[in-house]
Amino acid sequence: MIVRRYTDVKTEAINAEGAKGVAKRVLISRSDGAPNFIMRQFTIEPGGNTPYHTHDWEHEVYVLSGKGRVRQSDSVCDLSAGSVVLVLPNEEHGFINSGVEPLVFLCSVPK
Amino acid sequence: MIVRRYTDVKTEAINAEGAKGVAKRVLISRSDGAPNFIMRQFTIEPGGNTPYHTHDWEHEVYVLSGKGRVRQSDSVCDLSAGSVVLVLPNEEHGFINSGVEPLVFLCSVPK
Repeated sequence: MIVRRYTDVKTEAINAEGAKGVAKRVLISRSDGAPNFIMRQFTIEPGGNTPYHTHDWEHEVYVLSGKGRVRQSDSVCDLSAGSVVLVLPNEEHGFINSGVEPLVFLCSVPK
Repeated sequence: MIVRRYTDVKTEAINAEGAKGVAKRVLISRSDGAPNFIMRQFTIEPGGNTPYHTHDWEHEVYVLSGKGRVRQSDSVCDLSAGSVVLVLPNEEHGFINSGVEPLVFLCSVPK
């Protein structure tokens, strides 16, 4: 068993094309021995966004704090603490901070 | 893509042997089409606990609010908002609310 605090994990800036003001902590990783999926925590600064993109794996998201939006091909949905998002494989998506505080969310993905 | 709020999901009381004051919301389920893992949110009332048990799949836990402890075979660790727990397959574990408010945490498991 591993027990830690999110603050025990180093923050990594995300420099991918299309990302602005995004940082990640890998809270539960492959190297922890996670058998099937890993847990990441993202922070998007006000005015920032993740890349609008697609890939062949899913995201399972829970918003911890802040205000934002998730963009998909045909709509945009508001997000706040307690929002839950399932992005299925190959669905276009992008997360946007629409507020004045950091937007912080968990995003788990298959290993 | 599915976007919802945790409050959109019905709460189910957990009546398993050894559970006391525990309820669950399945925030992202098999029926949503989750390909690999599902996301549940548990609430343990003050004085309550999950069963102390083991099984052959992992838990990936993030504590949202409240105070608690996770018990394992040889130790007990304190939990509060921002605590992260990886319970590996076949590790004994039990979650306990040690505070005066509900202990609320996410717990994802493989499908």
